[in-house]
Amino acid sequence: MKVTLNSDMGESYGIHSFGNDDALLDLVDTANVACGFHAGDPSGIRETVTKAAAAGVSVGAHPGLPDPVGFGRREMKLYPDEVRDIVLYQVGALKGFLDAAGVALDHIKPHGSLYGMVARDEALMDAVCDVAVMYGVPVFGMAGTAHERVSAARGVPFLAEFYVDLEYSADGGLIIARRPHATPVERAVERMTVALDEGVAIAATGERIPMRFDTVCVHSDTPNAVAVATAIRAVIDSQDSTSGKVSHV
Amino acid sequence: MKVTLNSDMGESYGIHSFGNDDALLDLVDTANVACGFHAGDPSGIRETVTKAAAAGVSVGAHPGLPDPVGFGRREMKLYPDEVRDIVLYQVGALKGFLDAAGVALDHIKPHGSLYGMVARDEALMDAVCDVAVMYGVPVFGMAGTAHERVSAARGVPFLAEFYVDLEYSADGGLIIARRPHATPVERAVERMTVALDEGVAIAATGERIPMRFDTVCVHSDTPNAVAVATAIRAVIDSQDSTSGKVSHV
Amino acid sequence: MKVTLNSDMGESYGIHSFGNDDALLDLVDTANVACGFHAGDPSGIRETVTKAAAAGVSVGAHPGLPDPVGFGRREMKLYPDEVRDIVLYQVGALKGFLDAAGVALDHIKPHGSLYGMVARDEALMDAVCDVAVMYGVPVFGMAGTAHERVSAARGVPFLAEFYVDLEYSADGGLIIARRPHATPVERAVERMTVALDEGVAIAATGERIPMRFDTVCVHSDTPNAVAVATAIRAVIDSQDSTSGKVSHV
Amino acid sequence: MKVTLNSDMGESYGIHSFGNDDALLDLVDTANVACGFHAGDPSGIRETVTKAAAAGVSVGAHPGLPDPVGFGRREMKLYPDEVRDIVLYQVGALKGFLDAAGVALDHIKPHGSLYGMVARDEALMDAVCDVAVMYGVPVFGMAGTAHERVSAARGVPFLAEFYVDLEYSADGGLIIARRPHATPVERAVERMTVALDEGVAIAATGERIPMRFDTVCVHSDTPNAVAVATAIRAVIDSQDSTSGKVSHV
Repeated sequence: MKVTLNSDMGESYGIHSFGNDDALLDLVDTANVACGFHAGDPSGIRETVTKAAAAGVSVGAHPGLPDPVGFGRREMKLYPDEVRDIVLYQVGALKGFLDAAGVALDHIKPHGSLYGMVARDEALMDAVCDVAVMYGVPVFGMAGTAHERVSAARGVPFLAEFYVDLEYSADGGLIIARRPHATPVERAVERMTVALDEGVAIAATGERIPMRFDTVCVHSDTPNAVAVATAIRAVIDSQDSTSGKVSHV
Repeated sequence: MKVTLNSDMGESYGIHSFGNDDALLDLVDTANVACGFHAGDPSGIRETVTKAAAAGVSVGAHPGLPDPVGFGRREMKLYPDEVRDIVLYQVGALKGFLDAAGVALDHIKPHGSLYGMVARDEALMDAVCDVAVMYGVPVFGMAGTAHERVSAARGVPFLAEFYVDLEYSADGGLIIARRPHATPVERAVERMTVALDEGVAIAATGERIPMRFDTVCVHSDTPNAVAVATAIRAVIDSQDSTSGKVSHV
Repeated sequence: MKVTLNSDMGESYGIHSFGNDDALLDLVDTANVACGFHAGDPSGIRETVTKAAAAGVSVGAHPGLPDPVGFGRREMKLYPDEVRDIVLYQVGALKGFLDAAGVALDHIKPHGSLYGMVARDEALMDAVCDVAVMYGVPVFGMAGTAHERVSAARGVPFLAEFYVDLEYSADGGLIIARRPHATPVERAVERMTVALDEGVAIAATGERIPMRFDTVCVHSDTPNAVAVATAIRAVIDSQDSTSGKVSHV
Repeated sequence: MKVTLNSDMGESYGIHSFGNDDALLDLVDTANVACGFHAGDPSGIRETVTKAAAAGVSVGAHPGLPDPVGFGRREMKLYPDEVRDIVLYQVGALKGFLDAAGVALDHIKPHGSLYGMVARDEALMDAVCDVAVMYGVPVFGMAGTAHERVSAARGVPFLAEFYVDLEYSADGGLIIARRPHATPVERAVERMTVALDEGVAIAATGERIPMRFDTVCVHSDTPNAVAVATAIRAVIDSQDSTSGKVSHV
């Protein structure tokens, strides 16, 4: 299976947007669309879903924490029931717009700190899987974490992600700043090439981390998101899809 | 067709609730469940849907304006697209919880000022009907208003409501205070009896207003909501359902 | 110095309130008024400040986390700068209403999970002290925690609190449920008496915890808050203020 | 008195910003800083106040409607008490950050639809004046509207504004779109020159509208805000301050 390119999109808030979505839709295979809690108001969701459908880009749900000021990047202590309910609320809301556009829900990918919380806590990830099972869709996440383990246990298809615009810590975790930093295009390309050729990520502190992945994420909230996505698209497209370095568990 | 009893429910907000829902579920036929904008957080929605299902009460969506502090009772100037999108977002979110509980969506009833706005403005009501058409459900509203006219034009089934705990103005409009006032039970019973027997409502200023209705609404946010609902339930149940005074257009 | 009675108040949210504030204002010495983030909308703040002034009750600020659905009881990972800024924003807003009413700001008492976060983390408590220093007011908190240590280091007057309607863990921490539970009046009175007579709290698991305190808190969000406050007021008033069991460090 | 240049600033929302504030601070005399309801989170407010102080730009409060998704540009039906309370809450909050920075509050300028609502409704404008009186600061507004009339009646100093990046209707009202449109720099310069030389604005429909003003507003949310402000600054600076076309009533 060929590696795909995904991007978090529709993360506008009313008048505010990052301004990259239109260009990114020409570059990615699938969009993770914000559902209203960390970003994404109703009219913005409709607009993003409509544009994605027109661009032939599949749409997944990108539910976040109820913290628009913190853009869902400030961890909150939530019970599994709360996680299940905020994910279901947001996926259900997005589903309304998908149904209106005649587009299928492709997958669920939690956003920001919620992504990190459910990577570390199996009970919370189980709550996410409740929603994925209900809608019969895969989950995007990080290989080797609760994302993958709980998905496997629940029979939820799992697609592992690789991040070209974030640093990894030595233990394979992602280093997420609240405010996005532009990643130099060359650095992103280098990461992508090493990951595809050697199946590893190089941690910020130099360690080689084994990296299995099915899909590559480029964030839309960095100033040079389009340049990064353009370069990564080219790298992916130039790869032989049978190289064997990339596996789907 | 026998007149039914409906109530706005699930209008809690986190720790805050009106405290009447459990008792009301034993009295009403259908619940209009808040969907998160004027009230109703995700876990509260799940709880309300679960309890309604257990009580055999059907569930409609009760979408409101994005103004929790104003409880959706402060009119906002919205474009039709905005109305359609906030209604779709909220109905979609509720639908997620209904699907999880294996319960069908029964109807859509806009809340508070949104209800009034779409009663007066056909373009806004048309936006509500977009969502009703999509889900194939009826709309609850007031006979003789844009609620009814636009529903008819769009082929959306329409159920007319009568309010026993609100005053009507001489032109048939509802007088809605931001803060609920308790309606004396005798007054509610009198209104209900006159409406059923004579097909009229008596306006606050004394006029007799012709009143067609299919369903009677009791609000859950008044201190004596349960007493009012109990009394109205008794009045309705004692009526001969073939009296002919009540008609569905 | 005589032990005082304080209560968290003004924790309404629009139409929703706990309904105990009017009665509690006759019983307490000081009110910790919600400032808009975990609860408390602008008009509710004005109303509470006005009523407190009329009742001769002093008013402190009760800033919380930006999570109205969670009532500020879901911990969030915040940087010290963020804590300082959300506390300053809320205290400033309350100060506007106090100035309008000609009432002085009495103190600052963080709410819910923010209270717990700054009890454990000195950098976060330092951020709270920045605001207390600026307004020249004391902080309410728990003896022996970062509340007290950082206040001392910063020269901020500190008043230690005792809770009669919450359980303590063996290490002196508070056990806070998201939803309030009524405390039996006899249990609250027993706790109060033991604390005043013996200077200890009995943990939920039975341990005796040394307890210094200057002020006693009764929450307003429990169903029997007024009954508890009435009983505790009586216990406090019957105490000899020179008993020496209560000290202010 | 020389005409000044003002700009609405600090209208970021968490991670989202328009990106023009830094450059505008070098160009304007005074900043109207968003206070949290239509935009402007606590840390963003602090940042804006700090930068304005460093740039020697005075700071006024720019309170808006409680509608971040609508950016305060969707009119809401509010009672005078509600207007007073949301304005006081926001001005109080900003005042906290001004006090922390040792900066005086310069003025109050309502934002967006609130600006329009209080231009048309004297009771609502009276509520704004309650807050201006309390803080002893002037109000910015439109000459000939309730802004000016009520300020005069209440003894509140009033500074009239002219808008170079908005169209006027024939009756002197502003035509405000929810989403900002870039104004061609030449068009803005032409408007400014005509206003300064002839004391009129040319309506979108061609009428000449007499225009008294003390200060000129450039919005920060248009893509070319900095270019417009640069050009307008040059026009203003080239004017003879004793031309007599501009008067302050």
